Amino acid sequence: MSKLEKSAIETALKSLPNWELADDGLSIGRVYMFGDFNAAFGFMTRVALMADKMDHHPEWFNVYNKVNVTLTTHDAGGVTQKDIDLATFCDKASSS
Amino acid sequence: MSKLEKSAIETALKSLPNWELADDGLSIGRVYMFGDFNAAFGFMTRVALMADKMDHHPEWFNVYNKVNVTLTTHDAGGVTQKDIDLATFCDKASSS
Repeated sequence: MSKLEKSAIETALKSLPNWELADDGLSIGRVYMFGDFNAAFGFMTRVALMADKMDHHPEWFNVYNKVNVTLTTHDAGGVTQKDIDLATFCDKASSS
Repeated sequence: MSKLEKSAIETALKSLPNWELADDGLSIGRVYMFGDFNAAFGFMTRVALMADKMDHHPEWFNVYNKVNVTLTTHDAGGVTQKDIDLATFCDKASSS
């Protein structure tokens, strides 16, 4: 899986309006806020199951109702379609 | 629940040898390494269930097989017995 060009990432992020490309261009990130820890960890569990199935894992930080997700593809040295796909799934999981 | 004195935290940490008091004295932290993401997230799930039961939640960061856990009691402005109890549970959960 090869690294996406900056223009391709920006195009993909038009469908992921709350995600941002990092300043260094190597990852995309989003912060999610939920009603409480239960909702936040429920989201993380849905994403964890998908991530393990995809064999593509997030970097994430959680405190109470807040989850910061960062996605990058280390093997490719940047953002790939896998990150876009997992970001799309995260948005879906966050609203279910 | 009141904040523990530094000496009380240091005494408690003798039973939690891999945990460290933060430089600012306001939290305790430990890094866990697991075999893979499945094991790391399994640990997080066990801790999440206990944390929600205790109504005392960790601040934590996960990337693949690594989990950084930070515990503090915001209401007390420092480390309380709740943090020691949750740290003890984390160690138990990490080896199960």
